[in-house]
Formats: sequence, C-alpha cells, structure tokens
Amino acid sequence: MSEQSLDHLLNEMTIDEKIAQLMQLATPFFKGSSDNGEITGPMEEMGIDESIIKNTGSVLGASGAKEIKVIQKQHLQTNRLGIPLLFMSDIIHGYKTIFPVPLAIGCSWDLHLAEKSAEIAAKEAAVSGVHVTFAPMVDLVRDPRWGRVMESTGEDPYLNSEFAKAQVRGFQGEDLTQDMNRVAACVKHFAAYGAPEGGRDYNTVNMSERELRETYLPAYKAALEAGSEMVMTAFNTVDGIPATGNKRLMRDLLRDEWNFDGVLISDWGAVKEMVPHGVAEDGKEAALKAIKAGLDIEMMTTCYVDHLRDLIEAGTVDEALLDEAVMRILQLKQKLGLFENPYRGADEAKEQSLIMSDEHRQIARELAAKSAVLLKNDQVLPLQKQQEIALIGPMAESGDILGQWSWRGSREEAVSLREGIKTKIGATNLRTAQGCDIESSTEAQLAEAIETAKTADIIVLALGERSEMSGEAGSRSNIKLPQAQLDLIKAVKQLNKPTVAILFNGRPLDLHGVADQADAVLEAWQPGTEGGNAIADLLYGDVNPSGKLTMSFPHSVGQVPVYYNHFNTGRPKDAPDAQERYVSQYLDSPNDPMYPFGFGLSYTSFTYNDLTLSTDSLTLGQPLTVTVTVTNSGQTSGEEIVQFYTRDHVGEVVRPLKELKGFRRIKLEPGETREVHFTLTEEQLRYHHADLEFTSDPGTFTVYVGPNSKECLAKSFHLSH
Amino acid sequence: MSEQSLDHLLNEMTIDEKIAQLMQLATPFFKGSSDNGEITGPMEEMGIDESIIKNTGSVLGASGAKEIKVIQKQHLQTNRLGIPLLFMSDIIHGYKTIFPVPLAIGCSWDLHLAEKSAEIAAKEAAVSGVHVTFAPMVDLVRDPRWGRVMESTGEDPYLNSEFAKAQVRGFQGEDLTQDMNRVAACVKHFAAYGAPEGGRDYNTVNMSERELRETYLPAYKAALEAGSEMVMTAFNTVDGIPATGNKRLMRDLLRDEWNFDGVLISDWGAVKEMVPHGVAEDGKEAALKAIKAGLDIEMMTTCYVDHLRDLIEAGTVDEALLDEAVMRILQLKQKLGLFENPYRGADEAKEQSLIMSDEHRQIARELAAKSAVLLKNDQVLPLQKQQEIALIGPMAESGDILGQWSWRGSREEAVSLREGIKTKIGATNLRTAQGCDIESSTEAQLAEAIETAKTADIIVLALGERSEMSGEAGSRSNIKLPQAQLDLIKAVKQLNKPTVAILFNGRPLDLHGVADQADAVLEAWQPGTEGGNAIADLLYGDVNPSGKLTMSFPHSVGQVPVYYNHFNTGRPKDAPDAQERYVSQYLDSPNDPMYPFGFGLSYTSFTYNDLTLSTDSLTLGQPLTVTVTVTNSGQTSGEEIVQFYTRDHVGEVVRPLKELKGFRRIKLEPGETREVHFTLTEEQLRYHHADLEFTSDPGTFTVYVGPNSKECLAKSFHLSH
Repeated sequence: MSEQSLDHLLNEMTIDEKIAQLMQLATPFFKGSSDNGEITGPMEEMGIDESIIKNTGSVLGASGAKEIKVIQKQHLQTNRLGIPLLFMSDIIHGYKTIFPVPLAIGCSWDLHLAEKSAEIAAKEAAVSGVHVTFAPMVDLVRDPRWGRVMESTGEDPYLNSEFAKAQVRGFQGEDLTQDMNRVAACVKHFAAYGAPEGGRDYNTVNMSERELRETYLPAYKAALEAGSEMVMTAFNTVDGIPATGNKRLMRDLLRDEWNFDGVLISDWGAVKEMVPHGVAEDGKEAALKAIKAGLDIEMMTTCYVDHLRDLIEAGTVDEALLDEAVMRILQLKQKLGLFENPYRGADEAKEQSLIMSDEHRQIARELAAKSAVLLKNDQVLPLQKQQEIALIGPMAESGDILGQWSWRGSREEAVSLREGIKTKIGATNLRTAQGCDIESSTEAQLAEAIETAKTADIIVLALGERSEMSGEAGSRSNIKLPQAQLDLIKAVKQLNKPTVAILFNGRPLDLHGVADQADAVLEAWQPGTEGGNAIADLLYGDVNPSGKLTMSFPHSVGQVPVYYNHFNTGRPKDAPDAQERYVSQYLDSPNDPMYPFGFGLSYTSFTYNDLTLSTDSLTLGQPLTVTVTVTNSGQTSGEEIVQFYTRDHVGEVVRPLKELKGFRRIKLEPGETREVHFTLTEEQLRYHHADLEFTSDPGTFTVYVGPNSKECLAKSFHLSH
Repeated sequence: MSEQSLDHLLNEMTIDEKIAQLMQLATPFFKGSSDNGEITGPMEEMGIDESIIKNTGSVLGASGAKEIKVIQKQHLQTNRLGIPLLFMSDIIHGYKTIFPVPLAIGCSWDLHLAEKSAEIAAKEAAVSGVHVTFAPMVDLVRDPRWGRVMESTGEDPYLNSEFAKAQVRGFQGEDLTQDMNRVAACVKHFAAYGAPEGGRDYNTVNMSERELRETYLPAYKAALEAGSEMVMTAFNTVDGIPATGNKRLMRDLLRDEWNFDGVLISDWGAVKEMVPHGVAEDGKEAALKAIKAGLDIEMMTTCYVDHLRDLIEAGTVDEALLDEAVMRILQLKQKLGLFENPYRGADEAKEQSLIMSDEHRQIARELAAKSAVLLKNDQVLPLQKQQEIALIGPMAESGDILGQWSWRGSREEAVSLREGIKTKIGATNLRTAQGCDIESSTEAQLAEAIETAKTADIIVLALGERSEMSGEAGSRSNIKLPQAQLDLIKAVKQLNKPTVAILFNGRPLDLHGVADQADAVLEAWQPGTEGGNAIADLLYGDVNPSGKLTMSFPHSVGQVPVYYNHFNTGRPKDAPDAQERYVSQYLDSPNDPMYPFGFGLSYTSFTYNDLTLSTDSLTLGQPLTVTVTVTNSGQTSGEEIVQFYTRDHVGEVVRPLKELKGFRRIKLEPGETREVHFTLTEEQLRYHHADLEFTSDPGTFTVYVGPNSKECLAKSFHLSH
C-alpha cells in the first residue's frame, strides 16, 4: 500500500476507529484465541465491548501460526476497513529455543552470536505469526537488587549500545518488508528504567539530565540508529514525570531531537498508572498527558478509548495528534506488509521444522558456553571424564534454567546440568543428590548429599536462584544465595574434596560463603534450553571458558551501587598521598567489587605486552592506533576478550576512571601471539558537558588495554583540537 | 570601622595581602600556637613562608582564650595593616559541654533546646576566643551507611530547616557585633553532601536540579534566612562539578538568586581536590575555577596564594573578583568587631566560670533525655530502684558517648551509663560486666557477663558503636551492630530474664538481632557529656521518653534508601487492587522501614481523636486550621510530639506520600486532653514544578495528624486558586 493509500485510509476512518488503533489488548479479548473461549468477561472487566474490539490496532502476547491466523481472519471479517491487527509479543532471549538471559549474553561479548540469537528468535516467532517483539531491553543497570538486571546486557553504555544494535539487526534483518523471517524490534524501556531507587522495581528514578544523556540514553539511541521500529516507555518517572506521560522525554527528545518517527508504545498498563503515580487525576488526564507527550499505543488500559474522543471534541486535544499516532501505526503495518498479507510469516509447517531445530539448539549451546564466566579455578577444572563426580544441589536436575521472559520456552525440554554431564560422560561416574531445595533443606537431604559425595573424586555443586527470584518485579534486598545453599556448601566442604560451584542465577550475587569455600566457581547464569550441554562442555574442557562479566559483582549489598566506570572523587582511597581515614571508603569493605567489570578466567592464560600508541598526540580527523600483543601463555587453546578503555584526566565535569571504547574476542592457540589493534578518534572522546553539549576537551588521556577493567597496561596521549 | 574605612583599607592592601586574606590555615602555622613550637615544618610542607603567614586572613581550629590572644597579638605585630585574624572552629554539638549528636538533637524535635544548646556552645567557644563555628551542618540524609548522618538532623527538609534556623539563632543571637557570647555561624555543606552514592563519604552526588531544590536545598536556605554569616561548600560534585568550583551553585544560585553576600569558604582542602576530582589540571586551574565560582576562603590548601596573582596579572581573573572576596572577609571581621577588639570574647576568667557550668550540663542532660527514642517496651521500663540490675556491655562504663565532632569534649568528663545509674540508685543493686568489646569478645568476657546476670532481676545491655564508626569518613557497608554484640545479646537472653538494650550509636541501625531479642530498646544515640545521667533519668522514669526518630531505621542495608516522604510509584504495593507480584516491592523484605520517621514510644500512651479542618476548601490568602485532640490515656505524665503532614494527590510532577508541615511538643498529665491546632496556608503547599517554578496546584490534598509518619488520622480538603 502506498503512502497516499495510507492517507486515504486514514481519511476514511471514523474518530472511534482511529482511537481504537491506539489500543493494544491481550489475546483473550479476541475471537479465535486459545487462551479464552469466553471473551465477555475480560471485556466487561475492561469496560469495553465488541464494537471497540473490532477496531483494535494490535494484540499482545499471541503466538502460534494457527491461532494468530484465526484471530486475524476473524478480525478482518469484522473490521470495517479491513485494517489488519499487529501481533506483538515478548520475545526477549529466544522464542522457544531459549538462549541465555541477556545479562549472560552480555558476558559473551559476542555481538555476532547475540545477533544470531536474535535472528533465530525472530525466525521462530515470525513463523508463529508474531510481527513485533518487545525487545531489545537495553536499560543500563548498576544495582543487582533489581531483578530485571537479567534482562540487560550490563553496566556499560558502549557495550550495551553495541548489543542493542546487534539485537535490532538480528530481529529486523535488512529488509523487514521482504524478509518474512524477521520481526520488528521495540527498544525498551525509555528511559532509565534500570536505575530504580533501592533496586526496587518500578521505583523512582532520579538523576540529572546530563547523567541521563551521558550514561543511560546511549543504548536506546544506538538501537534507534540501528533502525528499531518501535520504542516502549518505562514504568518509572524521569525527573518526577512518568516516562509514559513525559513530553520532554518523548516529544522533545525522542521525536524532535532524535527524529524518531516509529511507533511509541506504553508498557503494560502504564498510561493508567499515571493515576497512582499522582500526576493524573483520572484516566482522562492520563490520556491527555500521554497523547500530548507523544505516546501512540496504550497497552492494556483504556484511557485513550474512554476519553480521547471527548478530549478532541472539547478541543483539549488536537485531532492532528491522534492522526499522527494512527498514521505511525498504519505505516508500521504497511512496512510489515500486513495490508497485502495480514498473516505475514505465520506458517504451521515451518513452525514444525524450524522451531527448536538442531541448528537453533546448537547456537543456543554455543552462546551459553560463551556466556558463562569462570570466576575462580584453583586447578580443579576442567574435569576428567574418568573422575567420579558427585553432582549436588537444587539446580543439578532442574529445568528452571531458562530465566525470566522465556514465556514460550519449556523447562521440560531444557537440558539440565545432570543431563548435559550424563550425555558427555555417561552415568557411571556420575552420582547425584538434591542436597537442598532453593531456599530450604532437610536433614535427610543433607545426609544424602554427604553420602553421595563421600566416594566421589570431586564435588560439583549446582546452586542458584529460581527464575522468579529475578526478572520483572523480582527485586531482592539480599543478594546472597539462600542460606540453605550456603549451609550445603559448608557441609560438603567438610569432606575436604575438590569442590566446584556452578551458579544459575539472574543477577550478580554476593559470593561470600561461595567463592571462599569452593575451589572453582563458574557463573553459568540462566543459560537457556541447552544450558546443561553448554556447561558440561565447559566443565570437561570441550569448550574453554571465555565469558567476562558485564556487571560488577559486589562484595555485599551494602556496597551497592558499585560499577567500574565511576568517578575518582576528591579524596580517592588509592591516591599515593591518601590519608588513612579521610578518604572515600567504607570502614568495613573495599570500594572495589569482588569481581570487576570485564573479569573472567580461562583454562589457559593470556599475557599482554607492548602496548603502543601510533602517536602521543591525537588531533581532530587524525585517529590514533592502539596496538597490544596478546599471547596465549598456557597449554590450552582459548578465546580472550581484549578490552580497550580510556580515561579523560581533566574534564569540564568529572569523568569516569575508565570507559570502555572497544574490545576484540580473539582465539589463540597455546604459545600463539597476536597483535590487536584499536582505532581511537576524537569523536570517541566526546561527552556531555554542563550545558549538555557533546564535545571533547583537549588534554591528557590514558589508554588502557587488558583482560578486565582492573588489570590493564596503560599509556598516555594528548588530545589537541 | 565604617564601610568607607573598609574601602580605604582594601585600597591600601597590596595584591599579595589581599590574596592571603583568602587563605585559611590551621593553628600550627602560627606563632604562639600550643600545637607546635616549630612552625617551619608545616610551612615548608605547604610551600609557604612567614611572608605569607603574616598576611593570612583566618585560622582554623584554634581555641582557648590564652592561645588565641597570643596568636592574634603576634599577628597584629607583623601584619602591615593590622588586619586581625578570624578564628574559626568546628563547634558542632557543643564546645566542651557536649550535647547529643545532631541526629539525636533532631529526634528531640525541641527547637528551643536545640537553640539553647547552640547558644551554650557559642558562649563556651566565644569566651575561648572562637569567632566562627563551622555549623550548622544541615545536609539532608537518607542513607545510614554514610557516617556523617550523625551530624544532620535527619531526612526531612522542613524539620531540618527548622533546626537550621534554631541553631543559627543559637550561635549568632540577635546582634553578633554587640553580643560577645556569640559566634558567627557557617551553614554547610553546600550542597547535597548528604547524598553520596552508596553512602560512601565524599562520593559522587547525582540528582536533578528539581530534586536538589525541592529536597536538599531548603535547609541551607533556611539557615541563610536566619542570617548565617557564612556558607561552607561540600566535598562532593553537584551534577558533575565539585561544589567548590561550581559556579552555577555558588555564583548563580547562592549569590545571585538567593542574594547571599556573606563569606563562602571551602571545606578542608577542597579547592585543591578539584585536581583528583578531574576538573582541574593543577592548583592554578583549581584556583581559577574556585574564584570564578565565587569562593572566598580556601581552607588548608594554597591554590589562591600560589596562583591568583599570576591569574590576575595575566588577565585571566578580574581583580574585582579578588576585591569582592576580600571585602566580604573584611566585612565579617568588622561585623565581629575585630578591628576594634581583635580578641573579642576571649576571656580566661570566663572560660573558668562558664565552661562546663552546672547550667550547661543541666541543659545537656535535658536535651540528651529528650533526644533518646524508646523503640520497644514490653512492660519492662521504667525500672524500679529496688530491682537488682546487671549492666552489661561495651558501652556500660564507656565515656565514648560524645560522638564525632566533639573535639574539645572530654571522654573522661563524660558521665557513663554506669555512673549515671549509680548516682541514681547507688551501687547496691548495680552489677556490671563488660560482656564484650565493641567488635570482639572473649570466652571469659561472656562467662563473666552470664555470671553477673544470673542473680539480677533485670539485664540492661549497653551496646553500640565506637564514635569513629560514624562521623566524617565513617561510612559502613554493614549497618548492624558488630557480631560480638549480637552474640552477647543471644548469650544473655538464654537466662530468660527481662532484658533492656540501650544503644549508643551515630546512625540508624538494622536492629534485627536486637529488637527481636530485647524486651525494651532505647536508642540513646551518642548523648554527650551528660549521657549517663540522662539515660538513667529515662530508665528510672524520672523523665518519660519522648524522642521520635527523624531518620527511618531500615530493616536491612539492602533496603536503603528508605525514607518516609517517598513517592507512590505507578504500582504501589498496598493499593487495594494490587497484584501479588507486579508491584513495587522486594521479594524478601517489606518496603517500609523497621521504625518509621516520627516513631517513638513513651511510658504513657496518647490517643488522637477528632481531626477536623476549619474548611474543606483552602484558597489563596485564606488559611485552613487543622484541629486534633490528643489525650494522655496512660498513667504517667508525658510529652508527645504531635505531627502534621500533608499529601498532594495530583501534581504536575510526582509528590511525596507525606510531607511534614508542622509539629507540636506538648506535655499532658494522665487523663489530660488537649486540642492541638495547626494552620495551613497555600504557601506551604508549593513545590518545584518541572520548569522549577515554585507554585501550588489546585486539587485534592489530605491532612494527616498523628504520633508518627505511619499512624495518622486523615482528612481531605480541596485547594483552589
């Protein structure tokens, strides 16, 4: 359909038809949904009826080619102008083939595989009839109490931006209109949802606009630059105004400054939530604020449907605002080719052949192995197949390794750690015990665990969190493993056998009581469908661990927030002339995290040498080349993530101690040495000044290259304009 | 000296003489100081010599009439123009008669006694030769990890403002020039020093300007409205720029917008700290930024002295900026009458008669008793003199009850809890044991404690923190009592005797392990010189506890920040239609603190009835009267702090769930009922809008009156413009 035809269509629409395009409802409201044979109930609860449903613009949470086709068909029969529904779903880290949680994907530092995982998710979703995914989630996170850190790639603006782009490319491909295996992306949650006070989900966000722009906005912007068709607003306030009604954020910044002309959708119920937030007296005021702020689609509340007509008729809202919103939605439908083929990629045959295909599972396995981070290894790993192992712990046989937002994933089809190990080494040398439940234990469980461990050569503890312990609304004030699991570690440690802890969890944890007890610690995260196979690959050395943390692991919750790219303060603790007391420190804790950003071990070792800069004076238009040699100085082939940071020593405003500017994932055979090059331009040294101008300051900078954010080679240069 | 004479004096000064007026050095740099017979060493370290010292403007940390007179006299002999030195010191909660720490004073809600304590501190300091005190500290605090919360009156902008005014009145009196018993106040730390990230002292502060103005600035402003002669800058950055070089904060806001024309001083070393902060390349750039930002006095570094001359001669700094700063300092000297009497109040005879006088100690005792907060009392308190008590714990006989910033206070002269009890009941019924040290214990200590407790009728545990565990640079990541003390509680609890815990500490604590174990808990804070007597007064019912918390006590550090005047969020946990999961909450902790703002028990009980509003419609210029009846429904005479809050239900930006607008401390005899009235005007309902305008919004408000921020009677009204 041409642009003129869309104009024509818009002209033909009644005001009610237009307003209903702005409404998004969940599947149970629609005829043909398998969720609900009886749709009157939900409609009554929502205060709407069939006359509104038939004009609805989009559907939330449907999936399955058959069901979606039925719903779409029914809809087209009742919709006067034959405007197809848009089907949107939460496809966050896989559709049915579940990849590791995004925080784990971040730790892979593998943009290619991240893109590939999004592509597979898109493909499985697309053949199941989905048009739009509510992903990527690119909220920058610094507080492990917040359950939704599992859904972000971490604490770094640059790395999050790179992953944002990779995911958008993976979801959308190069031509959304032509490529039926792709879905439109919807970057979320705009903005700064990852910074709720106290790490409590949905809580107040408070920061200066400069900090917002410098740290929190880059990843959203990157996703838009990669072409994300949609943006979802955040639940939180931004400087006192809920994002969903925040004109400054949406209309001024997103639309006018960044020129975003795609569809802007609220999060679930967020329009109406302006009432409890206390910025709208009622649904009518909420609708007014949302439309004025530039919000197109209202998800799961009916403020627009209930009030926009009145607001327009009273002259409070210009109908042009409504038309603009409707047009954006129609344009997206057009881009997805829905006017020509309202069923798009939905294809039951392909569902059968593609979903959970061997190829998809293989990628999931590869990504899970690359996402895991080896935190400690006192010469215990890799295991030998002839060793008898006692696999103990609540996660040993658990399929609860998919993590939150794996809605269509099946725990039954997930490969547990036990299955993975058994497939690899057979059952002979593998004994298993539960040891404890996630949050409790019995004497009998402990006794069985000890009995099981007694004859083994090595103890492998499978520990972690239930997936509901993180994810949305999964905030915790305590970030240690539950006491029952800490007790289990203590109990088996009394046997004085080599002990490996494998952690399945969705947030950085306080690992006191784990890392000091176990001889090796592998952070497996929630690794997805192929988790058990991937971890077995790592345990037995078929894959060499290479993941590196993208979110700092604090020593304790009392140290939160702790992140690598912080400021120096006026009284840094580690200054050469630092006083003993009057420095910025805790009396009872280090300032540094337990494991820093970028940290992760390997079965081999890498040495960094000969950091050189092509010049010690960077100028505009003349980039600088950074070279370092990296050697695999161990006995095993392995991959290393070479990290490149800079520091701006004097800024108009304070500047981070380190900022990631680039990285390479390289593979080195034992003894092999490789030169790694990074290019640095003046553009990469720009930042937001006090007046929000984005420029660089001439002066001294330091380049750091190393295996993590703490241990780097360093060299300085001068920037002149 | 007249204003013309000051102009004349300024004209006579050389540029070096002017610049040195801006320098503040500690006592050891001056001849006649008792701290140091050899002054060459410190001068060399600082890179200055006698030629600069003789022109210095002010001295930090001197005290004692004799010493100050000698220093001043020596100085006047070498200073070419005979410009006297200003003597400034940290007199925070008492000079030698130490009052409770400011956080405790806050909990008294007694503005009159707070003023009186400042007046006494001023008097003792003034006769000792001090001209200016670096107080009041009015930083709003929400994070108990920060050690310096002990120095603030708490988490409420209104209450902090009232205390700020009371303290400034107390220090300065009505006429600083005439009244030799007063000292000039210096409100600090401008601005928002109380909000360091992670509660780590000197750390980054990050908030929007709106939040800064709405929550953090009011108390500084109140202190200035009360006439504070000076302002001290904060160590932290404010939106990326260290306060000490922050032109927007000082010149634009403080000078131009608020019209502050007093002296602006840096905190210790803070000018030079712009270098480690990374906003100045060296001392020269730091000097440039500070003078441009409007800073007059540089404390304890020499950036001005080393570089201002060059900067002025190069035309980088206008000499008018220097003249302006010097003139403010000369004006303060003039206001203090130093040109006429450079020794001002310094008087050895009065030192002898006034300092630690009975009257002063009596006020300290009264204030300490009013500052203590009874957190729990299961019918154990008050004690009876005939009961045999076992007084156990590391704070039982400790004089370390003065708290930080009690520099001239003497632990030896402080009344310990044991002394206080012994004075009250004699030694017969009092047995004492150490039980443990603050952070460790021995088997023998525990055994002795049990032995001591065995025959007693009641166990009184004296627990807490060493004063160095809070205060400046006293941040802690763990806010529980040290484990040794928690173990002591457990051990004595096995005796199954009534147990009272008395807490001496400088921050809100996580009281799990204390409040669940003890039958009564009294938060004594660091009560000062008369602490033991005051707590004994409370324990034996000679004074009825009446203090109420002005900072919330969290359930755990993982819940921080937790404060009463927070926002509702879009998904409040306690909404009638709240879902089980998808609300703003922790999975493992309440949202509410363990003890809320305003909370505190009494030996009697108070009931609140008949909340009435004079009208349900407030209009501009027509205030509303709130009336409530409060009854002493118990058996004991007591004082109650009646608290008055409002809530603005719909704002342009989100508004706090409750905001303190007034309070009354009333005394009621058993059975007595009193009507308490509050007046509410439209002005009190104003707040900072998105565009920073300070106005009110018409709409629905609720008035709350009650004994603390959680348990209130409520009534709504409508504001129309």
